[in-house]
Amino acid sequence: MPEAHTVTSYDDELRFLVRRLSEMGGIAERMVADAVAALVNADTASAQRVISEDLLLDNGEREVYDKAVIIIAKRQPMASDLREIIGSIRIASDLERVGDLGKNIAKRVIAVHTMAQPRKLVRGLEHLAELALTQLKEVLDAFATRSPTLANSIRERDEEIDAIYTSLFRELLTYMMEDPRNITACTHLLFCAKNIERIGDHATNIAETVYYVATGEQLAAERPKDDETASMIAPPPGAA
Amino acid sequence: MPEAHTVTSYDDELRFLVRRLSEMGGIAERMVADAVAALVNADTASAQRVISEDLLLDNGEREVYDKAVIIIAKRQPMASDLREIIGSIRIASDLERVGDLGKNIAKRVIAVHTMAQPRKLVRGLEHLAELALTQLKEVLDAFATRSPTLANSIRERDEEIDAIYTSLFRELLTYMMEDPRNITACTHLLFCAKNIERIGDHATNIAETVYYVATGEQLAAERPKDDETASMIAPPPGAA
Repeated sequence: MPEAHTVTSYDDELRFLVRRLSEMGGIAERMVADAVAALVNADTASAQRVISEDLLLDNGEREVYDKAVIIIAKRQPMASDLREIIGSIRIASDLERVGDLGKNIAKRVIAVHTMAQPRKLVRGLEHLAELALTQLKEVLDAFATRSPTLANSIRERDEEIDAIYTSLFRELLTYMMEDPRNITACTHLLFCAKNIERIGDHATNIAETVYYVATGEQLAAERPKDDETASMIAPPPGAA
Repeated sequence: MPEAHTVTSYDDELRFLVRRLSEMGGIAERMVADAVAALVNADTASAQRVISEDLLLDNGEREVYDKAVIIIAKRQPMASDLREIIGSIRIASDLERVGDLGKNIAKRVIAVHTMAQPRKLVRGLEHLAELALTQLKEVLDAFATRSPTLANSIRERDEEIDAIYTSLFRELLTYMMEDPRNITACTHLLFCAKNIERIGDHATNIAETVYYVATGEQLAAERPKDDETASMIAPPPGAA
């Protein structure tokens, strides 16, 4: 029976989840930013650091999950608290995946750091990463302030990331065709770009969770989640 | 108070979740199998069907989520039921992603169907897909039978998928280097292979959820989740 709980302690438990998610969000952002910087600067030591940090998010996700289940079992929360607690599990899972994607970018630094870096492409990746990180930062703000309006606007903006990803995809294909020696490095950069695009998708997932936590309503199913490059046949002439 | 519930109706609600997940699992398996068959047979009509089916999984995930929250709020379940209900939300989310990956493969059929298909590679993809689909089928059996032993063995076997993915990755790079006209098609096949490898990861996620539902314990964090190709510098001579 919820009335039997001391309010302070229950609030403390809910605040623990919010604080833990905020820490996880900070780690995920830093991992992605550091991985992309390591890629640009061919900094393998920094890439190694990103790889080792991933464990922090794995542990964070497990901790949020365990804690959330315990809180629900112990407190039997009513609808809005319940949405928040289950939402925490979902957000922790998205942040853990963002960390995995950052780690995967960092691993590719080691594969490409000795190769000739196509600077223009690396700068394109930086720009893509900036957009994805802005989405991630804002969606964590939306969660902190429980703002459905902000959450919804973030979800709409995922299309911008997709457009830049599509143009990078074209450039990378053209680069490979121009000189087969670029193929291995460009393939890794292609996956880095795809990883960053997926980070944008996770920000979108979190935006949907925040909207649900705040309003109790799920956003409509149709949303721009897949990328456009899947049906791309060849880069247009002179795309690079 | 749980005692006030009629047992039959609560059981019905839990059974609804299990049945809905089983349906979703069937749809996800079929989408992936059909997408890979469409790729092999350059069958764009079948690919279009896969793309349109994705909505079924989007709706399934939303329905499981809504229903799970309602059951928890209404029934205030104790620990083991609670694990199962929250586990259902996680599994629905993994199955929805598997559907997205199948859809993404189907989209690539349309991009590559007019091109010369490297048959050996397509057969490699088929083999990879068979393994991933076996993982998915078995993990759904493990959920249906609540078998932590089966769940744990599935998680271990993800390494086999990674090994085949790595060898396909090498072959695809070599193919691209041999003839730049293969680059666009091989890039799409590279992403198809990555998608299938990720389906294996989702089967692994579901295995971890099943283990947790059945035992109340989370499996250790360290597990083979990332692929090995991330740090691959170039295919060895004569790899194709």
